[in-house]
Amino acid sequence: MKEKILDYLNKKDDYLSGDQISKHLGISRQGLWKHIQELKDSGYEIVAVPHLGYRLQSCPDRLFPFEVTRNLNTKFTGKKIHYFDYLASTMDLAMQLGMQGEPAGTLVLAESQTKGRGRLGRNWFSPKYKGIYLSLILRPKILPQVSPILTLMSAVSICEALKNTLGMETQIKWPNDVLMHNKKIAGILTEMNSEVDKVNFVVIGIGLNVNNDKKYLIAQATSLKEQSGQRVSRIFILQELLRRLEANYSLLEDKGSAPIIDKWRTFSLTLGKRVKVYCQDKHIEGSAVDIDKDGGLLIRKDSGLIQKVSSGDVMHCR
Amino acid sequence: MKEKILDYLNKKDDYLSGDQISKHLGISRQGLWKHIQELKDSGYEIVAVPHLGYRLQSCPDRLFPFEVTRNLNTKFTGKKIHYFDYLASTMDLAMQLGMQGEPAGTLVLAESQTKGRGRLGRNWFSPKYKGIYLSLILRPKILPQVSPILTLMSAVSICEALKNTLGMETQIKWPNDVLMHNKKIAGILTEMNSEVDKVNFVVIGIGLNVNNDKKYLIAQATSLKEQSGQRVSRIFILQELLRRLEANYSLLEDKGSAPIIDKWRTFSLTLGKRVKVYCQDKHIEGSAVDIDKDGGLLIRKDSGLIQKVSSGDVMHCR
Repeated sequence: MKEKILDYLNKKDDYLSGDQISKHLGISRQGLWKHIQELKDSGYEIVAVPHLGYRLQSCPDRLFPFEVTRNLNTKFTGKKIHYFDYLASTMDLAMQLGMQGEPAGTLVLAESQTKGRGRLGRNWFSPKYKGIYLSLILRPKILPQVSPILTLMSAVSICEALKNTLGMETQIKWPNDVLMHNKKIAGILTEMNSEVDKVNFVVIGIGLNVNNDKKYLIAQATSLKEQSGQRVSRIFILQELLRRLEANYSLLEDKGSAPIIDKWRTFSLTLGKRVKVYCQDKHIEGSAVDIDKDGGLLIRKDSGLIQKVSSGDVMHCR
Repeated sequence: MKEKILDYLNKKDDYLSGDQISKHLGISRQGLWKHIQELKDSGYEIVAVPHLGYRLQSCPDRLFPFEVTRNLNTKFTGKKIHYFDYLASTMDLAMQLGMQGEPAGTLVLAESQTKGRGRLGRNWFSPKYKGIYLSLILRPKILPQVSPILTLMSAVSICEALKNTLGMETQIKWPNDVLMHNKKIAGILTEMNSEVDKVNFVVIGIGLNVNNDKKYLIAQATSLKEQSGQRVSRIFILQELLRRLEANYSLLEDKGSAPIIDKWRTFSLTLGKRVKVYCQDKHIEGSAVDIDKDGGLLIRKDSGLIQKVSSGDVMHCR
């Protein structure tokens, strides 16, 4: 109902009488009053003027589930949202929820994380209300060894969402960093719970720096605010990101990995570069020539030999 | 302390005075009496005769943790045991415990399971006190795609344990069924929680039919009791199984997969046979010629082409 009240208040840039709203939404005046109070408590500035009615002055910068789902228009992504002001890690909770049978598309969303994490147990700095920190449960019918494609699919979705909403151009550093002007703006962590020959479920974690101020970012990191020079609506970007994730995931299910990899190539910062890839205790140096259908990076070594790397940390040389 | 009292009572096939036991173990007579009562409550038949003392008549057929760890002599396997009279599924709990950071070697053990499960969500019938139903947490430093070797390692451990304890010969049907006279006696389910390029932890689930009566077994299944014609001590087999699992896991860590695969070949019922392998919605028919270093089955098709299968259900033809 809060969603509907906001929708209605949003439509008009003028005062609306309580009577008008109540009638339109089919609720009692008292019910309306209660909802309005709750919205105000949540940070919505709603002014009430006698004889004129209510007017929505401003919305708080929060990722409330009813705001996320409003006009989202997805089939399953974000249909169920677990939302927290702060959480240790959206990944941990989503993995738990996956085990409890939560359906594909279920989203865990936190305004801040105390133990946000990236690949290989690395830290993901998650200051309150500054970024988008989400974990999405998916239940793909794939073999575990095919799962890296989901990381590429997510990276592509982030790039597309930023282009569609802000017109910003981003690049992907293989396998899972999204960069803008060579600085990291988003990271992806894909975890799964699987049998040897069946994925039970996958959780895709995304951390995106949105309104982080430059002074709180490390040298290799950036935010949408730093890049665009202004505050950015997190909800607007989150919604488009969820839409792109669903669209690309459906594409993957329908057509396989080829179209995802084609898109990935267009955003790639790695292909064509001379790279060093650190994988476990070894490293491989050479020219990043292509990506194969499983998302593995193909490197042409100086000997001319082409070697595939399934995972690792890439350093772009020169 | 219960462990020590049983050890001491076990050593002599005669009555031991309370005074003697108390002194030997350094506990009060009252403390001893309390422990003896608890042991009796757990099903141990301990007779107490005035002026003679205590005598252990019989032990209950239970997998109590203090019985499992007694003289187990492993480094980490079974050092911590979560034991239940019944449980929905040892796998579910072990996966939860793995996420909570329980160390490698932690064991979940149930006398019965209400929702015991095998590969691909299949049911594992787990009647009370009849079988061994365990899940073991491991934290191998391997890439997710290498995990199938853990299933082979577990199958080898089961065969070795049955040979060492009962002198029984078993065979392995690729990848994870242990058979005796062509009937299934044990199953293995390997699940993992992983990132794309890092295994967080693995849970190995084993279901072994021990004292199941023939009339309660389906046609393709058998039990140690049916095969040997007599009741078998579950604790004796469980302990040896844990020792073999630890030994083979250490072998895998030290020397890689080759020695495990060599052992696996000696127990294999599949190699050399004509097989049909059902994998997802396809099937491949041919001769099972070998197993590769990742545990994949190599099949020579009638065209002469050799194809690798990483997972699937094998049907032995003819």
